[in-house]
Amino acid sequence: MSMVRKKVSVIGSGFTGATTAFLLAQKELCDVVLVDIPGMENSTKGKALDMLEASPVQGFDASIIGTADYADTKDSDIVIITAGIARKPGMSRDDLVQTNQKVMKSVTAEIIKHSPDTTILVLTNPVDAMTYTVYKESGLPKERVIGQSGVLDTARFRTFIAQELNVSVKDVSGFVLGGHGDDMVPLVRYSAAGGVPLETLISPERIEEIVARTRKGGAEIVNLLGNGSAYYAPAASLVEMAEAILKDQKRIIPAIAYLEGEFGMDGIYLGVPTVLGKNGVEKIIDLELTDEEKQALSKSADSVKAVMQVLA
Amino acid sequence: MSMVRKKVSVIGSGFTGATTAFLLAQKELCDVVLVDIPGMENSTKGKALDMLEASPVQGFDASIIGTADYADTKDSDIVIITAGIARKPGMSRDDLVQTNQKVMKSVTAEIIKHSPDTTILVLTNPVDAMTYTVYKESGLPKERVIGQSGVLDTARFRTFIAQELNVSVKDVSGFVLGGHGDDMVPLVRYSAAGGVPLETLISPERIEEIVARTRKGGAEIVNLLGNGSAYYAPAASLVEMAEAILKDQKRIIPAIAYLEGEFGMDGIYLGVPTVLGKNGVEKIIDLELTDEEKQALSKSADSVKAVMQVLA
Amino acid sequence: MSMVRKKVSVIGSGFTGATTAFLLAQKELCDVVLVDIPGMENSTKGKALDMLEASPVQGFDASIIGTADYADTKDSDIVIITAGIARKPGMSRDDLVQTNQKVMKSVTAEIIKHSPDTTILVLTNPVDAMTYTVYKESGLPKERVIGQSGVLDTARFRTFIAQELNVSVKDVSGFVLGGHGDDMVPLVRYSAAGGVPLETLISPERIEEIVARTRKGGAEIVNLLGNGSAYYAPAASLVEMAEAILKDQKRIIPAIAYLEGEFGMDGIYLGVPTVLGKNGVEKIIDLELTDEEKQALSKSADSVKAVMQVLA
Amino acid sequence: MSMVRKKVSVIGSGFTGATTAFLLAQKELCDVVLVDIPGMENSTKGKALDMLEASPVQGFDASIIGTADYADTKDSDIVIITAGIARKPGMSRDDLVQTNQKVMKSVTAEIIKHSPDTTILVLTNPVDAMTYTVYKESGLPKERVIGQSGVLDTARFRTFIAQELNVSVKDVSGFVLGGHGDDMVPLVRYSAAGGVPLETLISPERIEEIVARTRKGGAEIVNLLGNGSAYYAPAASLVEMAEAILKDQKRIIPAIAYLEGEFGMDGIYLGVPTVLGKNGVEKIIDLELTDEEKQALSKSADSVKAVMQVLA
Repeated sequence: MSMVRKKVSVIGSGFTGATTAFLLAQKELCDVVLVDIPGMENSTKGKALDMLEASPVQGFDASIIGTADYADTKDSDIVIITAGIARKPGMSRDDLVQTNQKVMKSVTAEIIKHSPDTTILVLTNPVDAMTYTVYKESGLPKERVIGQSGVLDTARFRTFIAQELNVSVKDVSGFVLGGHGDDMVPLVRYSAAGGVPLETLISPERIEEIVARTRKGGAEIVNLLGNGSAYYAPAASLVEMAEAILKDQKRIIPAIAYLEGEFGMDGIYLGVPTVLGKNGVEKIIDLELTDEEKQALSKSADSVKAVMQVLA
Repeated sequence: MSMVRKKVSVIGSGFTGATTAFLLAQKELCDVVLVDIPGMENSTKGKALDMLEASPVQGFDASIIGTADYADTKDSDIVIITAGIARKPGMSRDDLVQTNQKVMKSVTAEIIKHSPDTTILVLTNPVDAMTYTVYKESGLPKERVIGQSGVLDTARFRTFIAQELNVSVKDVSGFVLGGHGDDMVPLVRYSAAGGVPLETLISPERIEEIVARTRKGGAEIVNLLGNGSAYYAPAASLVEMAEAILKDQKRIIPAIAYLEGEFGMDGIYLGVPTVLGKNGVEKIIDLELTDEEKQALSKSADSVKAVMQVLA
Repeated sequence: MSMVRKKVSVIGSGFTGATTAFLLAQKELCDVVLVDIPGMENSTKGKALDMLEASPVQGFDASIIGTADYADTKDSDIVIITAGIARKPGMSRDDLVQTNQKVMKSVTAEIIKHSPDTTILVLTNPVDAMTYTVYKESGLPKERVIGQSGVLDTARFRTFIAQELNVSVKDVSGFVLGGHGDDMVPLVRYSAAGGVPLETLISPERIEEIVARTRKGGAEIVNLLGNGSAYYAPAASLVEMAEAILKDQKRIIPAIAYLEGEFGMDGIYLGVPTVLGKNGVEKIIDLELTDEEKQALSKSADSVKAVMQVLA
Repeated sequence: MSMVRKKVSVIGSGFTGATTAFLLAQKELCDVVLVDIPGMENSTKGKALDMLEASPVQGFDASIIGTADYADTKDSDIVIITAGIARKPGMSRDDLVQTNQKVMKSVTAEIIKHSPDTTILVLTNPVDAMTYTVYKESGLPKERVIGQSGVLDTARFRTFIAQELNVSVKDVSGFVLGGHGDDMVPLVRYSAAGGVPLETLISPERIEEIVARTRKGGAEIVNLLGNGSAYYAPAASLVEMAEAILKDQKRIIPAIAYLEGEFGMDGIYLGVPTVLGKNGVEKIIDLELTDEEKQALSKSADSVKAVMQVLA
């Protein structure tokens, strides 16, 4: 039988990593191992302990530990990578890519050493290329290495639509293809409120504005915070993906998956609609696109490829 | 300030009424008063007490009482009517209508006496006509008397679609207009899985079969049970509507609302997409229909009118 | 890895069995198989389908099926037995025991055939003897065959205390040893509200009355219902035990466990404080009792032994 | 009727304030207004927006706004004060007290201007004296100004006990009187695991160590983090108190309440067992203490009084 608790390791104990760890434990989805580099070991332990001390009050049973030792991640069902640096003023994109690529390689090697059959979720930017890096480095089957961007982009889009219409976020559905942020390809014709297509509820101009705001959703938060970037919504997005896999929910979730022919693409990680279950990406839902959508997706793929060429 | 607990009374302590009471309390949405006729007083008290005794284990704080005295419903925020008889073999439809109309009248008079400003949700069949009866008898504004059928019909449709596609029910959205059961008008073009229109995922023939099964969804359960009818899904549907109102969620929910011009109908209660919030039906979402849909809705309205003519 | 969904089979599709199935699925703890005899096959399927149709509305992903074929229970992580008859007017206790013993034997044989390593929870009355019967018949290790009574007795006690003090049920803790109902041995000195011992909050006379009411808690519901017995609180109690095991929560829960020396008893199933985790009863918490408590527990054990002598 | 959403304002958008805001919204307890000083306005808005963008994924409906304008807090049901400075190296205790007293005064004046009938929860340290300051400044009745310390101290104690015994945190209850941290008076005789007194489960020496660790629980986190202090468990503690009041749960919760004779104290805010409901502190549970406990509580009160003398 299989009544051992699930185990998820979160690499990177920054705001997103820590919040992800907390939300996972809060739902009693698994035991959680929060990992950071040796220099951060104590603060990682401190965060984990603080979360654990919230458990009697919030009413959840889960072990949460902080560590700098990957041995503690042994036999993780899922590993979530939030580690890496953010782009700083004056840093070239290529520097960012190469630095985070190195982080991905070393992190992935450690993960695989202790959990050779795990499933990995990647958040680190530029996320499409970093997911590809982890895939190559890990040797895992493609369906077990998955990037996050579409859940977050869609969540922002849904939030803005719900505000526009003054309705519940629960009833707004959205749909995003392609890369994160600027490269996002929102399929507005597949977005709805209570099942009713947005186009019958909101003017095209206003939808356009909301799409534009969604594309810049990460930057909007960065600009407001002044110092740092979004972490609540990114963490929630990672947790939704992990839950779908841990509970074998067969959720239809936009995820960065490895394409081999789908959407006319090959050998590239890109944001597409997937079915997530116990085997990771169990299916990619290949859609017929309009010419306009095809063009946008192609442009998005070009951006990803441009980043991939920077990879060492 | 407004930190008194909300109060919901459920009229009728049969399976649906009792399950509704339990699900309301379980979510800590409100205190619950379960009401039945004097001859059922003790069994109603017994059910309420049994539910209450589950509260320490399930971890909810809510008062649940059983009663035959409408004075106990005083100042209910919402009253849910599940009372009435089911159609028995050999009973004509007109007999059913007239019997339940009498029940609605007497129940409504009692409700209004103790909660003159409440909001009423009606489940009793034939539900469109019974909702109309309660509306007339109560003197409440139209937005405060609402019937349930679309949440349930949609739930069944979503269940069958999720099974067909082997995906999560959370990601399937459906959309139903018109009357309950046979008269239901499913807007398949507004139904989707993960935002992807069903028509791109399932063959037209198979969709047709699923629609047909949905229409007969109530009868399917009746036939299987042999003795009795569905109550889990109907109760869950009532609770979703009540929650939307109690928490002012502005949920977009298909509900039986009073039409005055919307969808080209007037002076009739019919299943349409609504926004439910603290004021009850805060909005009816008037949609442009195809000719085929218009015809189906018109046929559905005719059925309702035919029943309404039987009303005393 | 272990990301297959858990599976729980519930034997007996009466009110308690059905409610147990629903509450298990609602919490997304597992997939559920509801089993009854061939003559009840359709109604069991009907109940399961009705529950499943509530899932899109209540927002849970779980398979729920009804069946009369034990092959469907294959590889259950837990099996919950609610089958058996209730004592009817004019029926001797011995008749009840022998009838239900036969049911336990045949049910257990079927369970083990398909899930030889499962954990079994027993609700059927007289529960101590029936748990023993299942233990013997199953060949399972003692820690994997567990009876329910203490969670329910304690839940009732907590409900009454919370009402008496007008405080949240969440903050009342109780403690019951020994057999179910009349034989229950409440350790009042271990019961508290917000950590404060009851004895400092309620008069001894009133506590006595509440204990007496708790002992008769099952009969109180039976008398009120007129026809039938409690099922919400019993189902919630079974679900709490199953959850503790499925999630390896190490909950301290009163359960009917097989004693081999603990509390000075040997070779008998009796209600004692246990730690429930992935291995079933992982620990029995052996307490020092007062002379009075020892006597009460001994009397309770005598009752169980008397019933056991009736076993074939 | 009263179906408007509840509203809670959180003053201070640091980690504790922000986490409190998120946890409140996540439970759909209320709409949330997160307030900070004008210089922090944008980052406060950024945090609020990030949380809101998590709502479609986590499935909650609540408005969350960030602001520097107290007008946005108008008609708050509850206001939670987390504002103030932490003691820095080289800062005298008196400086801390006087600085935070000024913050409390100006914050309270603003709160009362817009919500004259609200209930205020205070977290700012030194919390007993700061709660007193808010009480005096607000003019609110004593039962509507409440400090937090006992939920957090108890949560830490429960966490450590659960780890020691390897049992669920859900089943460990603890009990703390008096001031926060070093002055905490744990009533070990009122602490239990599954109802079983700790003293029968853990050696006195080990309990003593766990009590000592609990007293230093805040410092343990501060030392680990290196830079900053705990916020998950403090936020969860505030949310539990707010929930008890918003839902009128009559929870028995240790809280800093104004004593007028209880526990032999007068005119002082001190941590005691209370019943929290819609009226705030609805009851103080006055306990008979042992001589040793009396002494400890008296010492704790002396510490509070010493701080109060520093108040301007």
